[in-house]
Amino acid sequence: MDYRIEKDTMGEVKVPVDAFYGAQTQRSIDNFRIAQDTNRMPLEIIRAFAYLKKAAALTNLDAGILTKEKSDLIGKVCDEILAGKLDQYFPLVVWQTGSGTQSNMNVNEVIAYRGHVLNGGKLEDKEKFLHPNDDVNKSQSSNDTFPTAMHIAAYKMLIEITIPGIEKLRDTLAAKSKAFMNVVKIGRTHFMDATPLTLGQEFSGYVSQLDHGLKAIRNTLPHLSELALGGTAVGTGINTPENYSENVAAHIATLTGLPFITAENKFEALAAHDAIVEAHGALKTVAVSLMKIANDIRMLSSGPRSGIGEIHIPDNEPGSSIMPGKVNPTQCEALTMIAAQVLGNDVAINIGGATGHFELNVFKPVMIFNFLHSARLIGDGCVSFNDKCAAGIEPIEANIRKHVENSLMLVTALNTKIGYYKAAEIAQKAHKEGTTLKEMAVKLGHLTPEDFDAWVIPANMVGKI
Amino acid sequence: MDYRIEKDTMGEVKVPVDAFYGAQTQRSIDNFRIAQDTNRMPLEIIRAFAYLKKAAALTNLDAGILTKEKSDLIGKVCDEILAGKLDQYFPLVVWQTGSGTQSNMNVNEVIAYRGHVLNGGKLEDKEKFLHPNDDVNKSQSSNDTFPTAMHIAAYKMLIEITIPGIEKLRDTLAAKSKAFMNVVKIGRTHFMDATPLTLGQEFSGYVSQLDHGLKAIRNTLPHLSELALGGTAVGTGINTPENYSENVAAHIATLTGLPFITAENKFEALAAHDAIVEAHGALKTVAVSLMKIANDIRMLSSGPRSGIGEIHIPDNEPGSSIMPGKVNPTQCEALTMIAAQVLGNDVAINIGGATGHFELNVFKPVMIFNFLHSARLIGDGCVSFNDKCAAGIEPIEANIRKHVENSLMLVTALNTKIGYYKAAEIAQKAHKEGTTLKEMAVKLGHLTPEDFDAWVIPANMVGKI
Amino acid sequence: MDYRIEKDTMGEVKVPVDAFYGAQTQRSIDNFRIAQDTNRMPLEIIRAFAYLKKAAALTNLDAGILTKEKSDLIGKVCDEILAGKLDQYFPLVVWQTGSGTQSNMNVNEVIAYRGHVLNGGKLEDKEKFLHPNDDVNKSQSSNDTFPTAMHIAAYKMLIEITIPGIEKLRDTLAAKSKAFMNVVKIGRTHFMDATPLTLGQEFSGYVSQLDHGLKAIRNTLPHLSELALGGTAVGTGINTPENYSENVAAHIATLTGLPFITAENKFEALAAHDAIVEAHGALKTVAVSLMKIANDIRMLSSGPRSGIGEIHIPDNEPGSSIMPGKVNPTQCEALTMIAAQVLGNDVAINIGGATGHFELNVFKPVMIFNFLHSARLIGDGCVSFNDKCAAGIEPIEANIRKHVENSLMLVTALNTKIGYYKAAEIAQKAHKEGTTLKEMAVKLGHLTPEDFDAWVIPANMVGKI
Amino acid sequence: MDYRIEKDTMGEVKVPVDAFYGAQTQRSIDNFRIAQDTNRMPLEIIRAFAYLKKAAALTNLDAGILTKEKSDLIGKVCDEILAGKLDQYFPLVVWQTGSGTQSNMNVNEVIAYRGHVLNGGKLEDKEKFLHPNDDVNKSQSSNDTFPTAMHIAAYKMLIEITIPGIEKLRDTLAAKSKAFMNVVKIGRTHFMDATPLTLGQEFSGYVSQLDHGLKAIRNTLPHLSELALGGTAVGTGINTPENYSENVAAHIATLTGLPFITAENKFEALAAHDAIVEAHGALKTVAVSLMKIANDIRMLSSGPRSGIGEIHIPDNEPGSSIMPGKVNPTQCEALTMIAAQVLGNDVAINIGGATGHFELNVFKPVMIFNFLHSARLIGDGCVSFNDKCAAGIEPIEANIRKHVENSLMLVTALNTKIGYYKAAEIAQKAHKEGTTLKEMAVKLGHLTPEDFDAWVIPANMVGKI
Repeated sequence: MDYRIEKDTMGEVKVPVDAFYGAQTQRSIDNFRIAQDTNRMPLEIIRAFAYLKKAAALTNLDAGILTKEKSDLIGKVCDEILAGKLDQYFPLVVWQTGSGTQSNMNVNEVIAYRGHVLNGGKLEDKEKFLHPNDDVNKSQSSNDTFPTAMHIAAYKMLIEITIPGIEKLRDTLAAKSKAFMNVVKIGRTHFMDATPLTLGQEFSGYVSQLDHGLKAIRNTLPHLSELALGGTAVGTGINTPENYSENVAAHIATLTGLPFITAENKFEALAAHDAIVEAHGALKTVAVSLMKIANDIRMLSSGPRSGIGEIHIPDNEPGSSIMPGKVNPTQCEALTMIAAQVLGNDVAINIGGATGHFELNVFKPVMIFNFLHSARLIGDGCVSFNDKCAAGIEPIEANIRKHVENSLMLVTALNTKIGYYKAAEIAQKAHKEGTTLKEMAVKLGHLTPEDFDAWVIPANMVGKI
Repeated sequence: MDYRIEKDTMGEVKVPVDAFYGAQTQRSIDNFRIAQDTNRMPLEIIRAFAYLKKAAALTNLDAGILTKEKSDLIGKVCDEILAGKLDQYFPLVVWQTGSGTQSNMNVNEVIAYRGHVLNGGKLEDKEKFLHPNDDVNKSQSSNDTFPTAMHIAAYKMLIEITIPGIEKLRDTLAAKSKAFMNVVKIGRTHFMDATPLTLGQEFSGYVSQLDHGLKAIRNTLPHLSELALGGTAVGTGINTPENYSENVAAHIATLTGLPFITAENKFEALAAHDAIVEAHGALKTVAVSLMKIANDIRMLSSGPRSGIGEIHIPDNEPGSSIMPGKVNPTQCEALTMIAAQVLGNDVAINIGGATGHFELNVFKPVMIFNFLHSARLIGDGCVSFNDKCAAGIEPIEANIRKHVENSLMLVTALNTKIGYYKAAEIAQKAHKEGTTLKEMAVKLGHLTPEDFDAWVIPANMVGKI
Repeated sequence: MDYRIEKDTMGEVKVPVDAFYGAQTQRSIDNFRIAQDTNRMPLEIIRAFAYLKKAAALTNLDAGILTKEKSDLIGKVCDEILAGKLDQYFPLVVWQTGSGTQSNMNVNEVIAYRGHVLNGGKLEDKEKFLHPNDDVNKSQSSNDTFPTAMHIAAYKMLIEITIPGIEKLRDTLAAKSKAFMNVVKIGRTHFMDATPLTLGQEFSGYVSQLDHGLKAIRNTLPHLSELALGGTAVGTGINTPENYSENVAAHIATLTGLPFITAENKFEALAAHDAIVEAHGALKTVAVSLMKIANDIRMLSSGPRSGIGEIHIPDNEPGSSIMPGKVNPTQCEALTMIAAQVLGNDVAINIGGATGHFELNVFKPVMIFNFLHSARLIGDGCVSFNDKCAAGIEPIEANIRKHVENSLMLVTALNTKIGYYKAAEIAQKAHKEGTTLKEMAVKLGHLTPEDFDAWVIPANMVGKI
Repeated sequence: MDYRIEKDTMGEVKVPVDAFYGAQTQRSIDNFRIAQDTNRMPLEIIRAFAYLKKAAALTNLDAGILTKEKSDLIGKVCDEILAGKLDQYFPLVVWQTGSGTQSNMNVNEVIAYRGHVLNGGKLEDKEKFLHPNDDVNKSQSSNDTFPTAMHIAAYKMLIEITIPGIEKLRDTLAAKSKAFMNVVKIGRTHFMDATPLTLGQEFSGYVSQLDHGLKAIRNTLPHLSELALGGTAVGTGINTPENYSENVAAHIATLTGLPFITAENKFEALAAHDAIVEAHGALKTVAVSLMKIANDIRMLSSGPRSGIGEIHIPDNEPGSSIMPGKVNPTQCEALTMIAAQVLGNDVAINIGGATGHFELNVFKPVMIFNFLHSARLIGDGCVSFNDKCAAGIEPIEANIRKHVENSLMLVTALNTKIGYYKAAEIAQKAHKEGTTLKEMAVKLGHLTPEDFDAWVIPANMVGKI
């Protein structure tokens, strides 16, 4: 590869001749050879930086400390970044400095160098039109830009991917719940036969879980909407112009179309990332819900002949490389694996969040890496599960009917008629002797066949629908 | 020990002759010999059951399906339970059936048997005035009572112990923040010297963390306020009178003075405990905050001679059994251990929450055990930390002054005057040669001594206070 | 309550008049009012201290720095502690100083004061015959005694409770595996019908899991056998006589009958508790195994009429307060709740282990609290599950036979005869049309009825037994 | 894009015209649009499959059930896969079926199709020379190949990346420990000044941690060396030739040069992945160690002027985008972030491991994804930390000397001379009055200046070196 020489405050570095980045990006590549094939800093963070660098340039322009020419040029490169045109120049990994300084500098360098070229300069020019620190990073510090990028990326992902994905699944399950509202089936508690309910009621529980989960996520958005920008090095806002924090947040809100505001307390916003911890707490709650829902669907669809077999789910692919004709609940499996991942990510985030010191938390990259991972997985996972599984669920009515009719737990309807103890006696003896409840009830003399037929009606045991 | 014989639907059991419980409680003692010395079902759950049993009796009375005499008697025993008079009759452990059925039956039995005695009967009477299932458990199932008790106990603990504890600490830290607002000190990022801030600003970050944490907890209360009661066996409300759910929730609200309502969806309320998962997600966020705060205070108070030594914390006890005169940040240690515990409890709760099946989650006891543990630890821990540590924090002004005056990072004030590169050169060379910034700045010819004195003033670098 | 006045280096403290402890214990009670009702320092730690204090006294005697009279007296009180006679004098909680200094001092005080009384003195004597620091704690520091007590308590619990509990369950499952070795049943993969195996083979997997788990636990014992004692304050062994470390470890080995040795590196032994982290890593592996096993048994026993119903487990108690005659897999539920708890405890331990600083880890109490909790739960839980569930498992042969005979996955036997594609066609069409495999195989012309009968024999599909 | 039509048992699918894969790979792409940009099935798994497919072909050849021509052809493609030539044809994500069936089929298809082309055929030929199921997958099932690939990939990564990385760091720290063995410094317990030790002793603790960690990892290798291959669909080995398990394991051992053997119990090997859980338990133990070590080094190097400042670490990059001249412990930050990630991954693995059902665990991809992630991060992270930080650590002797000389905890040397109480009095008063220990000791009359000088010598307080 051909190189050119770049310099920073520490000296000279060889950089690939065509790269729109400089010494500090290259130092990070050289210094952090850790999972470089797979653990790049998420592109969502790079894009979030583009919003904030453009917003900072506009705010600096407003404040009269950056020229219109420079501000425009910065904005132009940011637009290219947002359009995905410069992705290859963001090669750094998550496992770098814990403040994300190197990714901030990577963005500063790309904007400065690409801007210089857009402005007619050449990469090998010793003086560039834009300076990474003095122009692009003006009124900023990694310590406030990186957490700002974290919040922008997290908020956007929740709004654009996670919440819509959950809502899509929620709506399908709600439609199924409605469609199945009169399908009376056996209930199961402790994985054992219990009193009946309808399939629609069972699904309504899933809908309620997701509704509560969506509310839980939305409750965490206000904290995420608070931006650290303007705190600079330690939260005091050193080297920023008057009203910078409020103004730059307003620009970011405009550029993203999202209700970002400046953080009430910049010391908190740099030194802690409780907003990420809190919001991921909502994501893990949803992961818990999804694990339950997908497990139920996996089990309800089990069989085809020796399982529970009460619902049919779509056959999307051959299920086995050795057992011909086998079909498996693969979407349930993907979704439950995702839930496991999110619950693991939660712990990584907690530890990162708990381990900041003094004015700066230096677990920023690992925290946002895990957050975005979870938010993406839940969003994509819900859509996949929805489209390829939930949307195609149908009851297997023959099995459902057989199960409910055989159930010994219909005896519960007799509690209020003959008392718990006699009802228990009927169920236990019917179980032991393999008879029906009715036969045993009559045999024991606790009620007449007519009473039984009048009192034990599964469809009457499911309450108001 | 002397025994009497009790019976349930499965047959006879020997019970201690004076025990106000019956066969099912005794079976559970015999069947679950697991950590019986230390892992009793939390008394908060027993108390919560007392509220709900009384409320159920009142609701059944209103509905005309329980006599006033029985309802009053049930209420009277519940009051004794709430007064702590019957604690010894609740010997069951957490590690029982996952629905908490045995603790529900334990409560039913204690109420029935103690009520019978209060009513003039004897424990050895074959027929009791109150029947554990048919009277005390009327219109109920373990499947809806236990989750109701979970929400009552969790909500009460948050309101009575956790939130007040956090608030107490928050208020002390806010007062300290105000008191220390003009104490200019060195900032530290990456655990390295950085630009200055005030000690009050530093503490304001802690206050903001706790304020956000309190908000996060409060956001989860509405889900916790939803009660499962009325769902009975599988969520359909079988064997309940008309409007039972709403009425019993209203009685519970009245008895507890807390805004409980009936759950929107009883299937969710039995089959999932996402409300517990969600609310504990807020508790773990607070644990993360407390870990950060206590770590900072531990480190700021380190020394006395070879540490950071910027604050003094109270000396509460001799610190070492071998090093005479040593004093340690023991309250910080207790609080950070608590944070570790809460983060572990969170995982137990997540796994429990994720592993319910069909109409019932059967990880109820482990979930509420961990929840109440965390809620108690945070509440008590904050009060202890507050009273024995935070309230006595004082700045060590001599050290603070020395640190800020020596700091090379004051050079940051020069960025906007001479640019980042020249400023960096000054700091690096001053560091290498062990000189002051001023000496080096002048030596390098980047500015005059007068400029330096005019531009580099720590108190001017802390922003608006 | 009546008080007497005690003193330590910080001044006077009021202590209950009859308490065999002094100022430092009382200070800890007063300073750490955190979950005092439920979170006492585990008695296993107190007992472990008794071993080590006696061993230290003997070693000090051997070294000529403690009189025989004092050494004997210390040993006598230690024996009382080991006999459980002084439990009430160890009231401190887990949430104290992170080095466990206060529990060390509590033990020192109890030994000194009780010893003084045994020696004919009175609690109110100003001078006691034994001094808590200068005699009982001689050649020791909390910093090396507490981690020593951790290893003694952990090792003993593993050997006495955990491993025997797992082994008991393992042996029962092995016996069941042998007994069921010829019961051909349907396999299930992805929770879906698969090719057959025998019930004994299925259970052999559980046995193998526990065998591997036991091996994993045993692999961690050597690290746990290393004792910190002799490191004193920071690992250098200041204030200890010659060869103290080796000698005191030998005494502890003799007293406990366990192969304890002095730690290779005392700095590691004080500053890190990786041995606890590592050993709990094995416990969590066993928890994972138990979750799998108990889940399988829960599901295999599901029904009685609308589940999988292939095994019968003992009915230990009435299962439902509302559904008469219901029996539930309560031992499975207790065991899976235990698994969830252990997986949570693991995280608390990891965080504690990771957060030590310099010469001392100060998360000692929370680490050992969680470790002992897990070790106890697994041990007790396995015994309970074994005695009340596993030992009584019986196959339900009728259901087993029906499931295997209906299975479409018997078609797999045809892969090597007619190829995967044709076999798949048979299974898919038989499923769609609800026929048997044989009917469809013949109908599609892929083989003759005679071929089918010769090739598709479930008992031939289970391999070598 | 141009397409060709491929078929499987479920029908036709459009596949990119040049892709060396078929219908089942394409179905998986279409069905699992989940984090497709970032969460590919790890290449280490693909490579592991290449070993096992080649080994299976050789074993089938030996058994006389595959022709030499086909076996050779399969081997040839496997070699191409191992050489990294076909990476682009493995596009599937982790979030697929939980058995990894689709990745197994992806490998089968690539081998079959690429083999067909190598054999002179064309991708569009309807009949291919090699059949993905009947030839490439012969004597196999996804259910035994995927766990085999998991063990091969995990074992190789541990041997090639993880263990060497840890060893490299361990060796550097050992060399530093030796080099610094006589540098007497202050000890710190509870983050507070304590008795002295040497810097070399402090580092020896780190070495001991890593030595124990390496041993812990190695203890888990035997379980990982057990291969599931030969268990096929459910562990019974259906459709395998005689002695297939042993033979194929021997071939894999030869091909990889690693001591793989056939699993003792195939039911365990398919249905549980406790070997992964157990081995990751060792990795998390190492993560805990690394967190401690990196935190210590971060803190020891803090400053440069207002921290602890006892060691110098290399300056690798400019540390701040706003504070000129700042240098940060970035390698410590990367390594502690890695530790947080590994502790999170552990939880994902635990949940995956705990949630298998019956004959198959279907959390295989998420488990191995997290395992390989951790193993890679620890290996790479240790090398990076070693090369860019540990190797360059040097003591800052002036600060070290100043700290130890000022220390009040040198008073501990007097315990055995004048007793703990008098020693404590000296330290407390010296602290309060800001004097030296010696001045106060003499002033209080507890000893002469000569005694003090004779007894209190830091270098004599560090024990045997």
